[in-house]
Amino acid sequence: MTLTSPGPTLGVVGGGQLGRMLAEAAAPLGVEVVVSDPTPDAPAALVARDQVVGDFDDAETVRELAERADYLTFEIELADPDLLEEVAAETDTPVHPDPETLRIIEDKLVQKRRLADAGVPVPDFCEVDSADELREALDDLGYPAMLKARKGGYDGRGNVPVESPDDVDEAFAEIVDAAQGGSPEDPSGVAMVEEMVDFKRELAVMGCLGSERWGDGGEPERDTFPVTETIHREEILRETRSPPEADEDVRERAREVALDVLDVMEGRGVYGIELFQTSDGEILLNEIAPRPHNSGHWTIEGCHTSQFEQHVRAVTGRPLGDTGRRAPTVSTNILGDVDDRQGATLSGEDAIFEAPRAHLHWYGKEEVYPLRKMGHIALVGRTDAAVDDLLADVREVRDGLTFEQ
Amino acid sequence: MTLTSPGPTLGVVGGGQLGRMLAEAAAPLGVEVVVSDPTPDAPAALVARDQVVGDFDDAETVRELAERADYLTFEIELADPDLLEEVAAETDTPVHPDPETLRIIEDKLVQKRRLADAGVPVPDFCEVDSADELREALDDLGYPAMLKARKGGYDGRGNVPVESPDDVDEAFAEIVDAAQGGSPEDPSGVAMVEEMVDFKRELAVMGCLGSERWGDGGEPERDTFPVTETIHREEILRETRSPPEADEDVRERAREVALDVLDVMEGRGVYGIELFQTSDGEILLNEIAPRPHNSGHWTIEGCHTSQFEQHVRAVTGRPLGDTGRRAPTVSTNILGDVDDRQGATLSGEDAIFEAPRAHLHWYGKEEVYPLRKMGHIALVGRTDAAVDDLLADVREVRDGLTFEQ
Repeated sequence: MTLTSPGPTLGVVGGGQLGRMLAEAAAPLGVEVVVSDPTPDAPAALVARDQVVGDFDDAETVRELAERADYLTFEIELADPDLLEEVAAETDTPVHPDPETLRIIEDKLVQKRRLADAGVPVPDFCEVDSADELREALDDLGYPAMLKARKGGYDGRGNVPVESPDDVDEAFAEIVDAAQGGSPEDPSGVAMVEEMVDFKRELAVMGCLGSERWGDGGEPERDTFPVTETIHREEILRETRSPPEADEDVRERAREVALDVLDVMEGRGVYGIELFQTSDGEILLNEIAPRPHNSGHWTIEGCHTSQFEQHVRAVTGRPLGDTGRRAPTVSTNILGDVDDRQGATLSGEDAIFEAPRAHLHWYGKEEVYPLRKMGHIALVGRTDAAVDDLLADVREVRDGLTFEQ
Repeated sequence: MTLTSPGPTLGVVGGGQLGRMLAEAAAPLGVEVVVSDPTPDAPAALVARDQVVGDFDDAETVRELAERADYLTFEIELADPDLLEEVAAETDTPVHPDPETLRIIEDKLVQKRRLADAGVPVPDFCEVDSADELREALDDLGYPAMLKARKGGYDGRGNVPVESPDDVDEAFAEIVDAAQGGSPEDPSGVAMVEEMVDFKRELAVMGCLGSERWGDGGEPERDTFPVTETIHREEILRETRSPPEADEDVRERAREVALDVLDVMEGRGVYGIELFQTSDGEILLNEIAPRPHNSGHWTIEGCHTSQFEQHVRAVTGRPLGDTGRRAPTVSTNILGDVDDRQGATLSGEDAIFEAPRAHLHWYGKEEVYPLRKMGHIALVGRTDAAVDDLLADVREVRDGLTFEQ
């Protein structure tokens, strides 16, 4: 391949913070990014070459994006796999990961079945098409359990814990409301239920699939970033720590599961693979995202190659970069701590800039609402730093931040 | 201070690679960059919010830039200090570094006098207003010596070595031609001559001046990045290595000289301070640039804070970041190896992406010409890496690159 000016254009469906950080990583490589997003002046627009304004599943928008792009990708599961396939064929623009992968992943039931079939360890689960089916399923799975929207859920929306038989009707109604395509009249096909895993901790692995050109024996190049521990509250990621507290053999097992997951995936790119470590040290797959993921933001400063550069490398057919960790690194999200949707002004920022080796990533969203992801902070340690101390430090910085009401 | 969306706007006079890397560093901090540059779609335009097209010293251009900006800075010495001062006052936009610093630095004779007066060790030098004065000066300084344009030189242009008395007339004519404001009819005020320093190696220190708010006792916050060795050929920087081969005491002396230089500078920002290490271990100041500098590009991956983020922090009044080196790091420029000006297509890029821990920075310039800076590669070592090996590795990668003719 050659480097040119202007360089190749990467079209990205979605222009949120993931698109923004993709564009930041693409620029030094000479790759120009155009995003599509329904919100004018989306977060990625600041850094990207341009933004096409339109819905993620709007045919004209995605067609325009494809026409301007040499490669297509997406940073949001709301991208429409049928449309991507159609437009990619029409405009002869390769799209990565493969829309078929998106199709598998966007439906959590299909995702789990496919992974279970491939031998990936997953929690017990089953399809439930009505409140009665849910009640019946829970006789087997037991309480509590996690009721999930098959499509359309993110950041906790679309996951409803069911604590006891008394919760069943209300929980089912709630999930039908949250799920994509759900209606109280015909709730079939929108929900699944899963055993509530009694996990010791949550882990995540960013997996990467590259080009056959750079892999062994005609296989796609394949790698993983170091295992990360993810800390959630109210189903929303709060912090990550790398290395995690988990033992070396648990980490190795997590990496093996991630590699097995990658075998099921089609198409180049990075994949966010969320895992449970059970109390007896087993690894179970939680969920997959076919794109850069919040649990991998720490790689920007923490690894030799960031998940965003890796995605750009993979999608544009370059060799994968070195995924090694440079130093112990933690991250925390900056979430909306407001009561209502309003203009975003964060006070307390001095502490971020004063903390040695703290790195701010502000997403530039004009409005804040409760628990909205507004930015993140990565804190990099010296090579011998204790991760517990780093985590305490970054929490202290974050806890001093507040959005003006 | 508070973080807002949109964030503050930093107006940058100049939209070359320095402006581009400034914009890359500014985005995660939520700082929007607008650049001014006479070339439409200048390198920085890809990443910046916007570009005002116009000359660096065009009043309307700089006024428009200032009106859109909350802070003004420059990435090129061709910025006009009088104009910056005037526009800053008119629009009430702070400009950093202080235009007075630019005024001192842009004239190499004024720069050297001011630094010598402040006790900074500099090579012997004197003003020369004619070929006869040059001949006379060289009777004292001896041959060879370096004849310099006081204003307008960069990347070797404006530096002419004088090897023997036979060269004097031709060298003087050449420097009058290269210097800003020079004419054969009235060559006075355009040239100076300096002893040719018999140096063992060249070193560079990026110095940083921050806000009084974060410094001790009302003084501006002050720091330096680790000392770097710079390797030039034909007066153009080819590679850097950090740490340099120099002993610890030489490095400490270089840092002290850099801090003395900062005492002469006015206004926030980073300063590229180029030094000679003489064969007896002394440090002499070579030149200063009041802006991020090629010798500091390695800090993007090599240090906890890059010179570009540091400049953004300083100019926008934030505390300076940690300048510590993360690991041994070398860099090489990618220079135009063509005979004529033409469209830029670089072949051999695979080697860059295949080299572990190599980081490409492609500047996106549409045309290449002989020795034009088209990009750079940083190579980061493991913490115990031998810098010699890194340098050999990065040279091997670079030597495989060539622009298609």
